Amino acid sequence: MSARNYTNDGGEFQSPALDRLVRSLSSLPGLGRKSATRIALHLIAQKASSEELLVAAAEAAEKVTNCSNCGAITEPDPCRICCSERRDPTQLCIVASPVDVLPFEKAGFFSGRYFVLGGLLSPLDGVRAGDLPFDRLAERVNRDGVTEVILALDASVEGETTALYLQRLLDGRNIKMTRLAIGIPVGGALAYTDEVTLQRAFQGRRSF
Amino acid sequence: MSARNYTNDGGEFQSPALDRLVRSLSSLPGLGRKSATRIALHLIAQKASSEELLVAAAEAAEKVTNCSNCGAITEPDPCRICCSERRDPTQLCIVASPVDVLPFEKAGFFSGRYFVLGGLLSPLDGVRAGDLPFDRLAERVNRDGVTEVILALDASVEGETTALYLQRLLDGRNIKMTRLAIGIPVGGALAYTDEVTLQRAFQGRRSF
Repeated sequence: MSARNYTNDGGEFQSPALDRLVRSLSSLPGLGRKSATRIALHLIAQKASSEELLVAAAEAAEKVTNCSNCGAITEPDPCRICCSERRDPTQLCIVASPVDVLPFEKAGFFSGRYFVLGGLLSPLDGVRAGDLPFDRLAERVNRDGVTEVILALDASVEGETTALYLQRLLDGRNIKMTRLAIGIPVGGALAYTDEVTLQRAFQGRRSF
Repeated sequence: MSARNYTNDGGEFQSPALDRLVRSLSSLPGLGRKSATRIALHLIAQKASSEELLVAAAEAAEKVTNCSNCGAITEPDPCRICCSERRDPTQLCIVASPVDVLPFEKAGFFSGRYFVLGGLLSPLDGVRAGDLPFDRLAERVNRDGVTEVILALDASVEGETTALYLQRLLDGRNIKMTRLAIGIPVGGALAYTDEVTLQRAFQGRRSF
């Protein structure tokens, strides 16, 4: 006996609308088909939760923007960091993405301002110097009289490449350039630290 | 020196709208704060993806319903399974939740119809017989001349309780009652099978 299939058609559900919702949710970062299905069924079952999410997403899409000065995520433009008198304009932290501002602001120790590059140099992916706002950065550095630039870029090949480019770009301006230390994270287990990180932590060892 | 916090206020972002979106996403099943943040930032950055999701969610909320006959997720009511001439109305599979219909329909081997209870008996959680549609089930069994009932309930205390109740409810009607076999899943490793499952698989061993 050949296997017969009693299911009506290709869709997983008896509902094209639900199939579309699952497909749409599956395209979000970090959500596989199973998680997307679980969320879709929750949204269908809990109309109130679904309503709230729709309103929140529409509102965020309308209100949230990037600061025209630094590139951070904000509602007012320029953002509150760029407008704050308490933030030192001469200390500039350069990050790759608007998201990278968040851990700094969460920790709350940094009193300077930011500049979001919006990407990292990557010859392999075709991201060249002309694609990133280095002109705007140089202008900002001049305008604000920046005296220290902190590079807070990923510890990847692209991060290194971009760091080297920035070093050359801002060379000869009497600006102190620093980078975030590479080492063992707080609470990290030495036994599970990868060799490259361990070597960098060793090279960067400090007297005690 | 006491720690100063340069962050402007309590919200994680410089945007109340984004904070609300993250909170709303965090309340979805299986999403923690980090995943919710990642998705929220993706939705902000990818307006097209966000638009598509909003349309899909609104459409699903509007169109998707539960079949008034069997309780399965459907757009047309009654659902296509209940309307299909190819599905045997005398073979009835009883499940707890609309979601439980999905693996059956995906596998496509079952040619009968369904009845969704919408829950399981659970004295501890206050779910009693009066809270579940047993009247509608008995009526359905009579109307369709059901000859076989397959209980496809969770292998939990609530599932067992409900199974026993159903056995008594449908007793004396000359209906064949069966339950899904409990055993080792296909591809499951014997070494990692829990003892209860192993014991049930042993009790249910079949000649070879």
